[in-house]
Amino acid sequence: MQQKDFWLLPDGIEEILPDEARHLENLRRTLLDMFACWGYELVIPPFIDFLDSLLTGSGHDLELQTFKLTDQISGKMLGVRADMTPQVSRIDAHNLKHEPPTRLCYVGTVLHTRGDPLEKTRSPMQIGAELYGHAGQESDVEVIRLMLEMLVMAGLQAVHLDLGHVGIYRALSEQAGLTKIQESELFDVLQRKARPELQDLLAEYSINSDLKMMLMKLPELNGDRGIINKARQLLSTANDEVKLALADLEAIAEKLAVHFPSLPISFDLAELRGYHYHTGVVFAAFVPSIGREIARGGRYDNIGAVFGRARPATGFSADLKTLSLLSKDSGQKQQSARIFAPHLDDGILNEKIRDLRARRQAVIQQLPGQAGNAKELGCTSILEKDNHHWVVRPLD
Amino acid sequence: MQQKDFWLLPDGIEEILPDEARHLENLRRTLLDMFACWGYELVIPPFIDFLDSLLTGSGHDLELQTFKLTDQISGKMLGVRADMTPQVSRIDAHNLKHEPPTRLCYVGTVLHTRGDPLEKTRSPMQIGAELYGHAGQESDVEVIRLMLEMLVMAGLQAVHLDLGHVGIYRALSEQAGLTKIQESELFDVLQRKARPELQDLLAEYSINSDLKMMLMKLPELNGDRGIINKARQLLSTANDEVKLALADLEAIAEKLAVHFPSLPISFDLAELRGYHYHTGVVFAAFVPSIGREIARGGRYDNIGAVFGRARPATGFSADLKTLSLLSKDSGQKQQSARIFAPHLDDGILNEKIRDLRARRQAVIQQLPGQAGNAKELGCTSILEKDNHHWVVRPLD
Repeated sequence: MQQKDFWLLPDGIEEILPDEARHLENLRRTLLDMFACWGYELVIPPFIDFLDSLLTGSGHDLELQTFKLTDQISGKMLGVRADMTPQVSRIDAHNLKHEPPTRLCYVGTVLHTRGDPLEKTRSPMQIGAELYGHAGQESDVEVIRLMLEMLVMAGLQAVHLDLGHVGIYRALSEQAGLTKIQESELFDVLQRKARPELQDLLAEYSINSDLKMMLMKLPELNGDRGIINKARQLLSTANDEVKLALADLEAIAEKLAVHFPSLPISFDLAELRGYHYHTGVVFAAFVPSIGREIARGGRYDNIGAVFGRARPATGFSADLKTLSLLSKDSGQKQQSARIFAPHLDDGILNEKIRDLRARRQAVIQQLPGQAGNAKELGCTSILEKDNHHWVVRPLD
Repeated sequence: MQQKDFWLLPDGIEEILPDEARHLENLRRTLLDMFACWGYELVIPPFIDFLDSLLTGSGHDLELQTFKLTDQISGKMLGVRADMTPQVSRIDAHNLKHEPPTRLCYVGTVLHTRGDPLEKTRSPMQIGAELYGHAGQESDVEVIRLMLEMLVMAGLQAVHLDLGHVGIYRALSEQAGLTKIQESELFDVLQRKARPELQDLLAEYSINSDLKMMLMKLPELNGDRGIINKARQLLSTANDEVKLALADLEAIAEKLAVHFPSLPISFDLAELRGYHYHTGVVFAAFVPSIGREIARGGRYDNIGAVFGRARPATGFSADLKTLSLLSKDSGQKQQSARIFAPHLDDGILNEKIRDLRARRQAVIQQLPGQAGNAKELGCTSILEKDNHHWVVRPLD
């Protein structure tokens, strides 16, 4: 590394300068306050953890994305969190141990060894909320509403919601008697929405032709509310789990429409986002200006099992940096007023400055011999002496 | 690792549960808002950086404390920040490039491979402020005042301030013509305040006897304001740099006394905290209840040189977790009121809940079939129907 390059940052790692940091901090507070108003309490999981704890249970998908460290004290492997959800579920399962539903929220940096091809950053500031201890669609509706409120608070417009349900593919695979390897092969192909490959692969499997047809049709089952009825017809010989999943999706969409009547909702029954992790409804929010989801979540029951307590769980997360950038674009930028004060050993001036600051006004005091005047310091007004008083006068 | 141990945390790594997290978040906001009122703007440096950038220039002391990672993208070594100060100085030097004084503040987790023997944590939440671009004592006074205001805001009492100046030992070493190795040996002994060793070591050096005496007396120069005059006598044949440093210390203490007349100030001229890093005044705050400094700082001119711009700099930092725990002890704990709402498909109820939340009240809505009643969810009141209205009634 050349001396001149010491200021270089690694790929996908950002530093946030004052204007953007102020905006992000304001949004952070607005969202955490809103979560608190819904009963979601803040927790702060640690930045590093034993690797086994981070990757345990439902977290294995994260292994490649997790930076590893050696603990000089225990000699064990540590990991830098790549997702805060497993940590929050540990807090629910091990520390809080409440019987009634538990609502938790969090915000903090996570690191990824490689960025998602769509996301440029490797250090998102993950913000999210989780609801533990309730298995019904009402808790899914609550967290989706909270996610949508978050996007409203961030000033985002033209939000679009995608709904799916990993239980449909899981139940069809089971009904078809697919082996773990077949289920995983088929999953890969469905993820890539590669229809011809899907056909070839299914042709190799010796399974019931009805089930073959149903698995084949899965990628067609995406679109508006009509899809649920189309699915009922196409998947009519599927088992009850599939039928319950469809009923859940329909009910959730209906309940959301009460609170967000103009929200466009799409269904995608082949969408298997977080398949190894999720157990039920999955959802994601999109805005037109950006070609990827800006918030996502779903049900992931029993995630706390390895920490000693299996509980139903549902929740969502987003990258606060992305939300902040998008909400900045939507015109919510604020200016802060700053007052310039001269440098004098004057008790009355000192008292005035203390008083202004106590009333939450920003006062910058001159330093003797400093470069730059009030305006160059970003001040819009100045403290001046008028008889025996110090008064704030706007700079023209 | 046994299954039952998945919830174990590494030594010195903590998770923060709701009560403490709320308290910490409130303090975080109070302090950042106060910093803003003094003109200090928030910046958010990245959690990881190229190792060379983190450890460069004045940062070499940090090498042992820094966790190392391999970057899969560049193949280079990355480090997890163990101190945010070098990153903030890079922002001043490289990104902002202002000519007038620049005031920045920050808060965020840093990691240490090994905890300080006195500090149990390996993941402090570092909060601090830095003032760049002014070399005089006035900027030192400003940042010390800001640090003291921070402790006032955190509700800490009986704060005590220690003042030192690394320029005194540096100037004496230079005047004595000590080699780098000698300077470093002597530094180690002074750090450990090991008088007999100091005597033995100085006896080996062939330096002027006046200077030998002055270096020998350095550890005695600690105590209240009288120390400055005692130092003037004992170090009367020292060079001008020493005299200027003593004058600086005296002036700073006088100026602080205007704003904090009852603050106890001690001087310690052998205190070389951050010697390789600091260039002038150093300071630390203590409270009686805890056997180590709770906030610290000093002048570290030219830290930005390796990033392309050497500027005078002075600042302080503290661990927000420690401040939060101490301020909790001092009785600032708050309770949050929560309202329980039944689960009904009732448009008027929904509107009432939305309205309460918009007015920043926490409303927890029941989930069908959930365990636990309103009280078990920590609610102090409940929404009840009274004729056609929904009203909030306190729970007895």
